[in-house]
Amino acid sequence: MKRIKVEKKLLSSNQQIAEENRRFFKQNGVVVFNLLSSPGSGKTSLIERTVSHLRGRLRTAVITGDLQTDRDAERIAQHRVPVKQITTGGACHLDAMMVKKALPFFAMDELDLLLIENVGNLVCPAAYDLGEDAKVTIMSVPEGDDKPLKYPVMFRISEVLIINKVDLLPYTNFDLGQAIRFARQINPAIKVFETSCITGAGLEDWFRWVEQRVSQLSEAAKK
Amino acid sequence: MKRIKVEKKLLSSNQQIAEENRRFFKQNGVVVFNLLSSPGSGKTSLIERTVSHLRGRLRTAVITGDLQTDRDAERIAQHRVPVKQITTGGACHLDAMMVKKALPFFAMDELDLLLIENVGNLVCPAAYDLGEDAKVTIMSVPEGDDKPLKYPVMFRISEVLIINKVDLLPYTNFDLGQAIRFARQINPAIKVFETSCITGAGLEDWFRWVEQRVSQLSEAAKK
Repeated sequence: MKRIKVEKKLLSSNQQIAEENRRFFKQNGVVVFNLLSSPGSGKTSLIERTVSHLRGRLRTAVITGDLQTDRDAERIAQHRVPVKQITTGGACHLDAMMVKKALPFFAMDELDLLLIENVGNLVCPAAYDLGEDAKVTIMSVPEGDDKPLKYPVMFRISEVLIINKVDLLPYTNFDLGQAIRFARQINPAIKVFETSCITGAGLEDWFRWVEQRVSQLSEAAKK
Repeated sequence: MKRIKVEKKLLSSNQQIAEENRRFFKQNGVVVFNLLSSPGSGKTSLIERTVSHLRGRLRTAVITGDLQTDRDAERIAQHRVPVKQITTGGACHLDAMMVKKALPFFAMDELDLLLIENVGNLVCPAAYDLGEDAKVTIMSVPEGDDKPLKYPVMFRISEVLIINKVDLLPYTNFDLGQAIRFARQINPAIKVFETSCITGAGLEDWFRWVEQRVSQLSEAAKK
């Protein structure tokens, strides 16, 4: 019971900071997406393709979270966007305070969009609001089509599901229809994209959604 | 600071129960492996192949952990081995108490080997000793060869690394040599197997290791 109490307290303190972050993002007119997935589902590749496409369309920055190394930040920085690596040490998720501390590294009033790449973990990051506008879960084809049933919380709280690495469909027993049915069983409203960062399949639809959603959310924030 | 104190207390209470489990396993002459990986790396398939191969050689049982569903237990039960599903609810790892509570479901003195399939998570389960003899980390080719650097703890504490889904090597940019170098940079003594549960590649080596290691550990426990 004590454990549950402490967890509740930690989460409520996280929630307060998340709300501060959210107000700060709104004041600066920045839309924020929190990208969530297992390790190795292709978050970094997807972000690379996305920031590269958005150049000249949306002023984008990236926060990327990992236990160790700044490999992801190095990869993303090659696309000449502002990027800040958070290395969590042992922690299995980003929390609102880590994000808050990273914000002074950006000229926030010159940004339209901030992409936050969470730690690769399909469980724990679900519990930590960072102040984002929307959560985007990425699952990749080799992980298997049953992941929405086995890790339901992540799918329930996400606005978008990206099924990545569809180029590997011919070499696995992944059933795309079944994966989407399982995801919608958990979250009927979830928006689904099927993508490959190798072949480029489906990326245009995802890019279009990002631009439309950023435009909608920016308009709504001004009111 | 309060958080750290509480975590330490939880872990030390977990450690006590893990030691109880360990004594209980030893008394019953059961060797225990804790299988760890990301979601979707192929733990369940590997266990299916392993228990199927071991039939008539080692009396094997399985504990399988998931947030939700008993899909894995159903798959493993088809191989007619004793299996107990632990559904953790929200929890991101198995702990020693969950395992302890599962043990009465088995006739322990009739077993040689217990395989514990942990929750799919490359971070949190590393912190929880279950009383096992050895940890086995599975990483799969589509996850990318940099995972040992990004999630070092899991690789540091494992006796074995299984690089699974090598049948997908031709369709990814995974560098097998580099993955092994990265893993050995973290843990020079780690034993590596390269496997595919689709083609069967490398499984014989893994099976042979399991039998040898169970035999060694059983002998050592008798002394």
